[in-house]
Amino acid sequence: MGKMGVLFVFSGPSGVGKGTLKKRLLEEFKGQIVDSVSATTREPRKDEQDGREYFFISRQEFDRRVENNDFLEHAEFSGNCYGTPRENVMNLLNRGIDVVLEIDVQGARQVREKMSDCVSIFILPPSFEELEHRLRERHTETEDKILERLETARREIPCAPEYDYQIVNNDLDAAYDQLRNVYVHAAQRA
Amino acid sequence: MGKMGVLFVFSGPSGVGKGTLKKRLLEEFKGQIVDSVSATTREPRKDEQDGREYFFISRQEFDRRVENNDFLEHAEFSGNCYGTPRENVMNLLNRGIDVVLEIDVQGARQVREKMSDCVSIFILPPSFEELEHRLRERHTETEDKILERLETARREIPCAPEYDYQIVNNDLDAAYDQLRNVYVHAAQRA
Repeated sequence: MGKMGVLFVFSGPSGVGKGTLKKRLLEEFKGQIVDSVSATTREPRKDEQDGREYFFISRQEFDRRVENNDFLEHAEFSGNCYGTPRENVMNLLNRGIDVVLEIDVQGARQVREKMSDCVSIFILPPSFEELEHRLRERHTETEDKILERLETARREIPCAPEYDYQIVNNDLDAAYDQLRNVYVHAAQRA
Repeated sequence: MGKMGVLFVFSGPSGVGKGTLKKRLLEEFKGQIVDSVSATTREPRKDEQDGREYFFISRQEFDRRVENNDFLEHAEFSGNCYGTPRENVMNLLNRGIDVVLEIDVQGARQVREKMSDCVSIFILPPSFEELEHRLRERHTETEDKILERLETARREIPCAPEYDYQIVNNDLDAAYDQLRNVYVHAAQRA
């Protein structure tokens, strides 16, 4: 049936640039690696499309899927539930396509338990002060929201050693080079 | 979000060689097009693995998914149910990966209703006699099974004009060249 794809797990605090790094990887290795579309109970935003940004499902349907073990990992943030559909990921991996999940520390633990072969990467800021600086530079969020993100970061950063790789995003190009090396190495190993 | 993938639907009678043609296409265009893993209520065979050949689910779960509109198409054969998970296909298409579904005429009709952009291809035998000859040459099936397949073929072949393309598989290489042209043309058009 050919080579299996490799499952990559990306975590790191909000503002660390993991979305940017992921996007660059997906673009450079188009057709080899994709990100999985998550299911969520939150309302779609105006420019969002079911099945593209998320699969938008009811809370009842979400709970049923949790019970049925249909998610590789799931979590609740600010009253909304998010989950990674197991079958979508398995479909991709079994067809030789690598998959990347951008999830939090709790989600990564759930995935590691179910998919022991996954490769996990934690993106670190050069310093806590720099992270705070980057979050404030966005100018898109309230002070409360920023403080909440920093609080989460304070809780998550100490979990970085649980991951297979830690990459410090000081300079974006340098961080991407490291990520690229990890990816090429892990994808070939499989 | 980048280019959407294209959904291809393959139909044709049992023994016509559509599996071989599909496999060749998937191999030549690895990373660009994959087949979707179906869900089924039938028991896994010894060498089958959940999520690779099929997702093996209970009849109760299958019925629930039908009710929930989770399948792009579904059908029952010899007491077993088969369905194409909608989310898996959407995940692939939305990440720019083309998808091929090898399904029967009824399934193709269901898919065409839901995904009007799909490209459908019917593989025809050079003649009915040649199809019978090929089915008998396999030496793997009972006479009853062969007669059943021929009966289904007699019902399905007249539906070929419903499809966007008809390809006669007389010579495998020639048929593949036609299929390849259809694929390359349709995938670029998207």
